[in-house]
Amino acid sequence: MEITLHAPLDMHLHLREGAMLQTVAPLSARDFAAAVVMPNLVPPVTSLERLLAYREAIVAAAQPHQFLPLMTLFFQDYDEASLRAARPHIIGVKLYPDGVTTNSAGGVSDLAAVEPTLALLERLAIPLLVHGESHGFVLDREAEFLPVYERWAQRFPQLTIVMEHITTAGALQLLQRYPNLAATVTLHHLLITLDDVAGGLLCPHLFCKPIAKRPEDREALLAAALAAQPRLMFGSDSAPHPVDRKEAAGCAAGVFTAPVILPLLVDLFARHHALERLQAFVSDNARAVYGFTPPAKPVTLRQEAWQVPARYGTVVPFYANQTLAWRVEVPRV
Amino acid sequence: MEITLHAPLDMHLHLREGAMLQTVAPLSARDFAAAVVMPNLVPPVTSLERLLAYREAIVAAAQPHQFLPLMTLFFQDYDEASLRAARPHIIGVKLYPDGVTTNSAGGVSDLAAVEPTLALLERLAIPLLVHGESHGFVLDREAEFLPVYERWAQRFPQLTIVMEHITTAGALQLLQRYPNLAATVTLHHLLITLDDVAGGLLCPHLFCKPIAKRPEDREALLAAALAAQPRLMFGSDSAPHPVDRKEAAGCAAGVFTAPVILPLLVDLFARHHALERLQAFVSDNARAVYGFTPPAKPVTLRQEAWQVPARYGTVVPFYANQTLAWRVEVPRV
Repeated sequence: MEITLHAPLDMHLHLREGAMLQTVAPLSARDFAAAVVMPNLVPPVTSLERLLAYREAIVAAAQPHQFLPLMTLFFQDYDEASLRAARPHIIGVKLYPDGVTTNSAGGVSDLAAVEPTLALLERLAIPLLVHGESHGFVLDREAEFLPVYERWAQRFPQLTIVMEHITTAGALQLLQRYPNLAATVTLHHLLITLDDVAGGLLCPHLFCKPIAKRPEDREALLAAALAAQPRLMFGSDSAPHPVDRKEAAGCAAGVFTAPVILPLLVDLFARHHALERLQAFVSDNARAVYGFTPPAKPVTLRQEAWQVPARYGTVVPFYANQTLAWRVEVPRV
Repeated sequence: MEITLHAPLDMHLHLREGAMLQTVAPLSARDFAAAVVMPNLVPPVTSLERLLAYREAIVAAAQPHQFLPLMTLFFQDYDEASLRAARPHIIGVKLYPDGVTTNSAGGVSDLAAVEPTLALLERLAIPLLVHGESHGFVLDREAEFLPVYERWAQRFPQLTIVMEHITTAGALQLLQRYPNLAATVTLHHLLITLDDVAGGLLCPHLFCKPIAKRPEDREALLAAALAAQPRLMFGSDSAPHPVDRKEAAGCAAGVFTAPVILPLLVDLFARHHALERLQAFVSDNARAVYGFTPPAKPVTLRQEAWQVPARYGTVVPFYANQTLAWRVEVPRV
């Protein structure tokens, strides 16, 4: 059996720089037509010059695959001239509260103070992508941020606000209430809960921010994904770290899913008799939210077992060493 | 300033065997008059012969310190003759639901089936020590087990039932309702929440079962400990694992607190102006619950800074490399 997806899109991706970029970019570039590239490098991507250089590095690393990096600027109080200059080159601006996740130092510390910039983004029709977590107790952080999303959705009705990597049933409910809210959801939050991270042995390779939540949250996210709920987009948040930063006394947050996303999504949707909605979840919903047309790129998966490697370079992937039922057919280039 | 505790007791301790026993036993033996030794070895301690040999090994490893190991049998459906034979040598029988924590394979899989043995323990006046967790979602496991405690407390009113290493406000509430229930609480559950384990970087050395819970749970436990609430005993659940089983793709559960317990407890009680209740929490409450008199052993702590080592043998301790304000005065032997 074969499944062909048309221009699958990963709407939330970490590609890093340097050697790590060389390792991971081809894996996403093989399977996806385009991806939204996160700007939380060290230092973050805050200038057009740096953004363009980063895009060039990504395109080079992605060779020989046809792959469109959709670039984002790290949120700051940019002036109008800067945003107008950047606009042709970006898909949005990514806002991080200060210190909430990997390389988010330098993010926003006063959420009230950003509203003039949000008004500017709204006027310029530049989407706002948000890592929506408070600094509260780890399991409550997303829930505590929802009132911020709601306030912004109300105050900036023409601004497209993307709630990135949502993990709770409450975020899904909010999504349905405001047409200018959109959301991404990862593969791993459709599959795991905190039980998989910490219920048996502690599994650092499943540790991420936002942390995986309760079974009822996972079930709500999965139901919404399988239904291809409008404005809910696939975004992997694939976030590679070298193994010595994961199996360590202080383990960095991030799950590296890039090489296994499409095989696992096809398997998941097939098991739930929802394959006919996978195209919408993994591509069409994002086209509608962002109003863009990706380059044509059919990606075919064949039902054929393969074993996920133990490592890609220094990185342990999601489902390492496990056998998957579907394989991406690598095109002749 | 100096503080002298009279026969401090650790009512829940893992000492392991072999080289690990040699490393960790002297640390507890220096600071405590006695400790309840858990039987979850591989294979578990299920015979009097093995129990006596283990006790002998502990006493030898504890040299030159004066230290009384209070031994426990791993729960099975023992017959009356076995329990009568063991009774002079044990402080209780420890029940593990099958597979809930380190080396708990072979534990109880049918909680209803154990009641005849509980009746026997009640008749023989042998306390029952329980790892009270269900097999549910990791944060709900203790709460889901509370009805089992309640049923047993009602059905076996003369049986002393110790809810080991409680982590929730709900368990404290249950403790107050039944005079035949007692409980232990660890040092680390008075100090940390899930935020410390997984709120920033993931910290495998703070990962334990039951997992640390919410801030309001920690606050309730701390308030009860500082009040030296009756039938609430100190039990460290100090549980050493070699560093290569902690900083690993699958990290074993357990926090190794043994070398820092008394300094941190004195500091904690001093900061909360509760030093006058530390003696009850760390010794007198346990004497009342178990109706036993420990050997006389004054242990003095002096207000003098020292740095916790990075390792004890292969084990990373709680508060590794940090400076503590109180030091146990090692007696001349």
